Amino acid sequence: MKKRILILFAFSALISFSTFAQQALWGAPGIVSPEVKNDNTVTFRLLAPAAKEVRITGDWMPAQGWGHGSEAMTRDEKGVWSYTTPVLPSDLYSYSFIVDSLTTTDPNNVYLIRDVASVTNIFIVSGDKGDVYKVNEVPHGTVARRWYNSPGNAATRRITIYTPAGYESSKEKYPVLYLLHGMGGDEEAWIALGRTSQILDNLIAQGKAKPMIVVMPNGNVAQEAAPGESNLGFYKPTFQLPNTMDGKFEETFTDIIKFVESNYRVKAEKSGRAIAGLSMGGFHSLHISRYYPNMFDYVGLFSAAIISDPKVTSKVYENIDGTLNIQMKNGCKIYWIGIGKTDFLYKNVTDYRVKLDGMGMKYSYYESEGGHTWTNWRVYLTQFVPLLFK
Amino acid sequence: MKKRILILFAFSALISFSTFAQQALWGAPGIVSPEVKNDNTVTFRLLAPAAKEVRITGDWMPAQGWGHGSEAMTRDEKGVWSYTTPVLPSDLYSYSFIVDSLTTTDPNNVYLIRDVASVTNIFIVSGDKGDVYKVNEVPHGTVARRWYNSPGNAATRRITIYTPAGYESSKEKYPVLYLLHGMGGDEEAWIALGRTSQILDNLIAQGKAKPMIVVMPNGNVAQEAAPGESNLGFYKPTFQLPNTMDGKFEETFTDIIKFVESNYRVKAEKSGRAIAGLSMGGFHSLHISRYYPNMFDYVGLFSAAIISDPKVTSKVYENIDGTLNIQMKNGCKIYWIGIGKTDFLYKNVTDYRVKLDGMGMKYSYYESEGGHTWTNWRVYLTQFVPLLFK
Repeated sequence: MKKRILILFAFSALISFSTFAQQALWGAPGIVSPEVKNDNTVTFRLLAPAAKEVRITGDWMPAQGWGHGSEAMTRDEKGVWSYTTPVLPSDLYSYSFIVDSLTTTDPNNVYLIRDVASVTNIFIVSGDKGDVYKVNEVPHGTVARRWYNSPGNAATRRITIYTPAGYESSKEKYPVLYLLHGMGGDEEAWIALGRTSQILDNLIAQGKAKPMIVVMPNGNVAQEAAPGESNLGFYKPTFQLPNTMDGKFEETFTDIIKFVESNYRVKAEKSGRAIAGLSMGGFHSLHISRYYPNMFDYVGLFSAAIISDPKVTSKVYENIDGTLNIQMKNGCKIYWIGIGKTDFLYKNVTDYRVKLDGMGMKYSYYESEGGHTWTNWRVYLTQFVPLLFK
Repeated sequence: MKKRILILFAFSALISFSTFAQQALWGAPGIVSPEVKNDNTVTFRLLAPAAKEVRITGDWMPAQGWGHGSEAMTRDEKGVWSYTTPVLPSDLYSYSFIVDSLTTTDPNNVYLIRDVASVTNIFIVSGDKGDVYKVNEVPHGTVARRWYNSPGNAATRRITIYTPAGYESSKEKYPVLYLLHGMGGDEEAWIALGRTSQILDNLIAQGKAKPMIVVMPNGNVAQEAAPGESNLGFYKPTFQLPNTMDGKFEETFTDIIKFVESNYRVKAEKSGRAIAGLSMGGFHSLHISRYYPNMFDYVGLFSAAIISDPKVTSKVYENIDGTLNIQMKNGCKIYWIGIGKTDFLYKNVTDYRVKLDGMGMKYSYYESEGGHTWTNWRVYLTQFVPLLFK
């Protein structure tokens, strides 16, 4: 007989711990919210017996200004408010509850993302796009938050880097996509709101995209790191930071390239470099790629904020036509432009396309429904990435 | 005169975008919450004009079961509810609002952490402990989320790895601390709730700790990754998973060691290995270190769940006294035990100490105020790490 010595017999403590902790940590154990059903309708529930009115607002509802409409939830006899959506197309969605005019998170859903100073719950409806944004049973890349030295900004700065599955055990050199966020974003934006690691894992596993490194820097040169990740502590994030579109980020972008190319096994050549960004990041991508006109074979402008501020003077924004011409003559394998039909920047992008047409610069153009939204930027990334490094 | 060509003059669009977006993304722009003041009192504010009663509950308040007490907030004429704490000792704190009995997050504070299925806001009061948990202007390590192959569990599993500042550019070999979470936790627990990267960055920069790698695996072998990070999707996290304390994690721990020692520049020897964990992770650390009695020179048991379930049979839990004796004879530089005076496991840990005393096994003992809390586990990590690899 095997000798089994029990160190201590206190299993009852474990049981009671478990019961207590479930109450404390689970909130209301009976409530599931959201419940994504097989028919792609979604039911939300909130226990709020004392509330007079509970509404839900979500980004599948019609846009209203920069927000969305809302729908009333219905109270049952126990004080549980619920609402079921119509059938939703497969996608990643965000939502909030509005309890007696207070916009709040869903206490039964721990999946949250921050956009500037706003935190909302998220869920995914499977089947099509949603499947690309989900974690699937495929090989997974590594996501690292690192700090790099930027002599051009006299700062150490935080950066998010995705390396594809197999990178660590391989001896190959990998191409690099530099992926830039919009105003109000930071080095967390693409990885959290953009689902970059899931999109890349899935597209690579499906053979639709080449394995590549994705580098997500912080485009606000006045900021060392995302809110809460620097010595500024836990401050309230703000939308518009200083020095975001004044040429400094573009000018010092070589610090990032130097860091990446001396720290990773990469194809340190034009054909191995892509740059893309959304909104302000599209503006940055446009200017970085023409200011260094022999650096990138792939450029992606997602809802690009093609805007000039007459008050800004920077050598980066001089001789734009000349450098664009040099960029064109040097050759650029894919110059990709994506914009939503109702985007407030639609006209700016259209005017820019007219300009490119006039120059004879070739580009790919993708026009989607909708506006200036992460819903679109995830789609643009999914469209753009398969075109790279082929 | 320099030639400056403006691509498009649409600065007014930027202005209006900015105004709209601020409204949409900022919520109520006038409200700051929490406001941590210089005298270490903290004021919380919530705009909820329709609410009848708003309370705040925070982990600086007296414990009540597994939760904490609450205090009433006061409404002003505009419907802003506020509450100011007494002077708080420097620390990291968490809190929630209770609006007409609905427990909810603070919409003006984007800093949140998840504990099992519960999400709360956090803030830091500077000056002492809080300074160790803050991001300071010191060299920062890298935090990577990776996937490793565990043949023993026939699974690919997610793991969080901290490498100290300078690791990438060095040729030195580094010692490794394996840091294990408690029941309900996962590979995100120590990095998020435990502030591991901040504590390590700060202690290393102060010269109090040796540069080391910290490996934070997922101790639930039935789970490939933290909730939301596996192909199980966005499910509601649960407290007690199967196969958490049945020997399987301990038995297959060598998969993790193999992965780390073949993927990182490490001191692959007993004097370069430490293992520590909280609650269930303390139980795991106890058993892993004695089951592999010549593997670790440093062991840390933080509020260890020294509990035996008579229903569990595993070769890992056989011959406990014998393997502990071998571990003692092999030598263990630091065997560290920390527990809070009001922890529900206090007696278990005391009984274990009696057992060690009886065997003649030397250990360090740290008894704190308080109970089974992250407040204590952050302190224990801060106490333990400086003792390692000296």
